[in-house]
Amino acid sequence: MRNFCLVLSYDGTRYRGWQKQGNTSQTIQGKLETMLSRLLDQKVETAGSGRTDAGVHALGQVVSFRADTALSCPEILSALRQYLPEDIGAVSLEEAPPRFHARLSAKEKTYVYRVWNSTVPCVFERKYVYVFPDALDLDSMRDAAGRLCGRHDFSAFSSGKKTGKAAVRTLREIGIERMGEEVCLTFTGDGFLYNMVRILTGTLLEVGRGDRTPESVEEILRAVDRTKAGFTVPPRGLFLREVRYD
Amino acid sequence: MRNFCLVLSYDGTRYRGWQKQGNTSQTIQGKLETMLSRLLDQKVETAGSGRTDAGVHALGQVVSFRADTALSCPEILSALRQYLPEDIGAVSLEEAPPRFHARLSAKEKTYVYRVWNSTVPCVFERKYVYVFPDALDLDSMRDAAGRLCGRHDFSAFSSGKKTGKAAVRTLREIGIERMGEEVCLTFTGDGFLYNMVRILTGTLLEVGRGDRTPESVEEILRAVDRTKAGFTVPPRGLFLREVRYD
Repeated sequence: MRNFCLVLSYDGTRYRGWQKQGNTSQTIQGKLETMLSRLLDQKVETAGSGRTDAGVHALGQVVSFRADTALSCPEILSALRQYLPEDIGAVSLEEAPPRFHARLSAKEKTYVYRVWNSTVPCVFERKYVYVFPDALDLDSMRDAAGRLCGRHDFSAFSSGKKTGKAAVRTLREIGIERMGEEVCLTFTGDGFLYNMVRILTGTLLEVGRGDRTPESVEEILRAVDRTKAGFTVPPRGLFLREVRYD
Repeated sequence: MRNFCLVLSYDGTRYRGWQKQGNTSQTIQGKLETMLSRLLDQKVETAGSGRTDAGVHALGQVVSFRADTALSCPEILSALRQYLPEDIGAVSLEEAPPRFHARLSAKEKTYVYRVWNSTVPCVFERKYVYVFPDALDLDSMRDAAGRLCGRHDFSAFSSGKKTGKAAVRTLREIGIERMGEEVCLTFTGDGFLYNMVRILTGTLLEVGRGDRTPESVEEILRAVDRTKAGFTVPPRGLFLREVRYD
């Protein structure tokens, strides 16, 4: 059995997220496994670096899978490019060391959240940004972001059920940059809880608008209570940008 | 009657072009006039700087219209932004001099054609580029482009019926730039015949691929014969970027 590492980009708009479910046809993993199984003439099971939720996009989702095939990587890659739907793109394919696993071997991930901070309509990127036209104080947001970085129990910033040790993650860096009408938030860490990037973003937007002080985010972390944090921004602005391995 | 100048951007993917037809619902002009007439409570007729064909996009289509209203420009603009569909964006609205007419007053236009020149899938911009993965010699394309610039009878580069003097246009500049996987062609001139930008682009791509010599485009101009020129690239990569006035 050979082990492969595939990098995918996808527009999550019309999918129920990465992870296959009963009816696999509307998940990215489901589409991919169907395609790979047909192409390699065997049942192929894939592992993604992590789930992305319904409507979330990826620039560099990493996927590993094992298969018994004489086809070369360029041949498999070319077939995937031909047969995958146009909203799922095969960026690269390489043979991986036998123990490589897209999720278990992952060391760090970077997510990007794109906010369209303007009343000027965003016509062409409309499916990839969240429109939030209120004035934002980026310095306050950066102050709050600095207080969120580090190793913490992020339960308050998750709609999942993990608590205590299981909810501890290290958030290494949050970048906040304006590019024209757009404000781009970049989150890098060793792992993210369910909805964590979207709740962090919603909370930071509330800080930026002046609804909360930058200091208040420390109280939210200590409270370990989802109701203390900000709103959950919609999936459309969220991209899994990169997964790093040793 | 006040006279207005509106700038629109639109994603042409799901429209039958700018110009209203019998059933106006699937044209941009049709959508806009319905909206303006309802908003200003009178029949409003608009003039665009020019037609864009089915599937062609605009970053800065200029539109003029007359109306009797007490509403301010920011009020009208804000209502348009609220009611226009999300693939049509109102960029700006100003009151114009009485004699201003979006088409008759236009001096020069710039169109951009976006070519995705790679086998790497273009997932997020897929509706706005034409995928042409063959290797392109940009120097040859620029050589040919230089020979096409100037004042010529462009009949050979049009699928319209104009001939002779009616087909004479001045093409001031053709820019050809690579940005990563994308090759972007920019056409600036005093006017363009039907399908002219798309046939010029198709011909330049054939030069870039080595199917034609740069010199051969001069013969095409002289032949005044559509069959001598290259193929018509699809509308999805074409954008009306800017219209200039005195």
